[in-house]
Amino acid sequence: MQWKRSKINPWSVSPGSATSTTQETPKTPVHGGDLVWAAALAGCSAEELLDFSANINPLGPPETARAAITAHLDSLKAYPDPDYQQLRQALAQMHQLPPEWIIPGNGAAELLTWVAWSLSRLEATYLVTPAFGDYWRALRAFNVKVLECPLSAVSGRWSLAWNFGSQTLQKGLLLNNPHNPTGRLWIREEICSILDRFALVVVDEAFMDFLPPDQEQSLIPVVRDYPYLVIVRSLTKFYSLPGLRLGYAIAHPDWLQQWRAWRDPWPVNTLAAAAGVACVGDTQFQQQTWSWLPPTRYDLFGGLGSLPGLQPFPSAANFLLVESDYPSSQLQSALLLHYQLLIRDCLSFSELGDRYFRVAVRSAADNQRLLSSLADLLS
Amino acid sequence: MQWKRSKINPWSVSPGSATSTTQETPKTPVHGGDLVWAAALAGCSAEELLDFSANINPLGPPETARAAITAHLDSLKAYPDPDYQQLRQALAQMHQLPPEWIIPGNGAAELLTWVAWSLSRLEATYLVTPAFGDYWRALRAFNVKVLECPLSAVSGRWSLAWNFGSQTLQKGLLLNNPHNPTGRLWIREEICSILDRFALVVVDEAFMDFLPPDQEQSLIPVVRDYPYLVIVRSLTKFYSLPGLRLGYAIAHPDWLQQWRAWRDPWPVNTLAAAAGVACVGDTQFQQQTWSWLPPTRYDLFGGLGSLPGLQPFPSAANFLLVESDYPSSQLQSALLLHYQLLIRDCLSFSELGDRYFRVAVRSAADNQRLLSSLADLLS
Repeated sequence: MQWKRSKINPWSVSPGSATSTTQETPKTPVHGGDLVWAAALAGCSAEELLDFSANINPLGPPETARAAITAHLDSLKAYPDPDYQQLRQALAQMHQLPPEWIIPGNGAAELLTWVAWSLSRLEATYLVTPAFGDYWRALRAFNVKVLECPLSAVSGRWSLAWNFGSQTLQKGLLLNNPHNPTGRLWIREEICSILDRFALVVVDEAFMDFLPPDQEQSLIPVVRDYPYLVIVRSLTKFYSLPGLRLGYAIAHPDWLQQWRAWRDPWPVNTLAAAAGVACVGDTQFQQQTWSWLPPTRYDLFGGLGSLPGLQPFPSAANFLLVESDYPSSQLQSALLLHYQLLIRDCLSFSELGDRYFRVAVRSAADNQRLLSSLADLLS
Repeated sequence: MQWKRSKINPWSVSPGSATSTTQETPKTPVHGGDLVWAAALAGCSAEELLDFSANINPLGPPETARAAITAHLDSLKAYPDPDYQQLRQALAQMHQLPPEWIIPGNGAAELLTWVAWSLSRLEATYLVTPAFGDYWRALRAFNVKVLECPLSAVSGRWSLAWNFGSQTLQKGLLLNNPHNPTGRLWIREEICSILDRFALVVVDEAFMDFLPPDQEQSLIPVVRDYPYLVIVRSLTKFYSLPGLRLGYAIAHPDWLQQWRAWRDPWPVNTLAAAAGVACVGDTQFQQQTWSWLPPTRYDLFGGLGSLPGLQPFPSAANFLLVESDYPSSQLQSALLLHYQLLIRDCLSFSELGDRYFRVAVRSAADNQRLLSSLADLLS
């Protein structure tokens, strides 16, 4: 297998004209979806890029969310309801929980900030790695002592030893399920069996809603049995509204009251709160997504696996981690420059380095364009 | 002067029907603008209330901002630009500063959080009191040791002794200018003269943009001379977009890089960033506001002062603090129940207590309705 010679060293090509209008030198981002950065390198507009780097549902946003946003434009001249009653009520109904167990946030990221401030009071926190970069951001902001629990790839599947030692009662644990970037899913019982061993367990379920109801493994149904369990959820990946910023946490009301006292009074903007109410009520959009994802992911998995030098991992989420015989940063650059296609290199996950990349599952047609571009590049 | 007997004890009247639909018992809010709470007590919808409690420009939002929001609805399916380049460029141009000196926030409140985390590393922080409740929230979240610097009312004017002692080089200072809730303005030179005595000085200029250019006393023109000065600004009061959440801080780039490393990657939503660009370029709206405020505030000041038992204080901002011979909490309740009119009691400012209230300057017609209602109540 050979790289096409003309595409082998994309950095020798001058970046596109967009660069000259930016004020700062583009730097490699630590998250997916940095389209301003990518467009500057690709020499096209952000809108012309096909973005496989951010794990966003390609079917959305749902029309109901857009209608709710438009209907609430007149509400912008008032402060948001600091209790976010309507949104909390809608989420409470969906999860069959009292509203007091739910707190919305300015994206899940804002809630991770306050979770980390709580974790900073403990002796240390176990972190399942490779870990989403924002966990590191939040933990480092408050000088949390981190103990890494590395996943290991065994026979094409990621596994965790769950070896935490015996002195864990003054420590925390932070993991996500399904895991990002591997797509690994743990069943509910496996996580429940270790919950009582920690002072605080944070399970980020940012991608759990992509699993059809008969397959999901959320801890929400058992949250009331575990007063030291916090579940963090996102509403902007499944409903394709990352620009709006909306997530929520579910935990014992004592935790939520604590975070509410610490954080600013109106972290969630009015339009996000209104869109959130519409989204959780849109069962049609939810069904469409659950019908689209499994077969489309299956086809993309098969297509990637059939390409020379690429080995995708099975995933329960709307993205696939791919092990690559080629440096993923160079693959990323070549796909940007020659195909206006953005994949997520994994350089920011130090455990993975330059031999892995991550792609979102998009529409069948978009996925085919990715596969064709990779085939062209790697032929 | 007598209270009208039928209106003297508003709490004996059953709250309106809205109460029965809320999940939580209405509590006295610590900020203005809590319309859900107020509407429940007034027995009307939030839209039917005339809100004098939140200090929002009644002329806005500008049409340009609304158009920018609508034009960016399609951008919501992508993450915001984590560098917020367009917004920072627009603000940089307005303030004639390099963009590296500017960081946007999810409202000024989000920036106060990170300012407080910086202040927590100092020995203590002086706080000019009575202080905006959100300063207390942010400082307490990070256990900042607070040293109060009380304002005192002398001959109908609020003054500050500026007595900080001699050991201030490891301490911080937090104040706002114009001061909320008094409306007191300090001239630039007065604040500059003490800046070098502190490890970090935070000046919240949330209402400075309401002053016409020939009267404003912002520290922005001198910020580059003071590496330990942070200026916090709001864009949602002047431009009437509090539901959207948008503020910014101006300080030496080292501070801003620090806060950016601590906080989540996309704190400002896409629509707020787009509206912000439109707002700062809307010179027509700015001129309209600067033409409206001084004469309208003058008339409201005169009207309040002519009512029995009320003494308003001179203010440089878009609100007036009023000393009252009557308990302001009862005045607030009576105005809500009988006139669907919401004023800001000052119970959350412990230094002021129940003999002060604050009202925003609204349109001439709205202000007249407030004056008539007060006259009716106090006659």
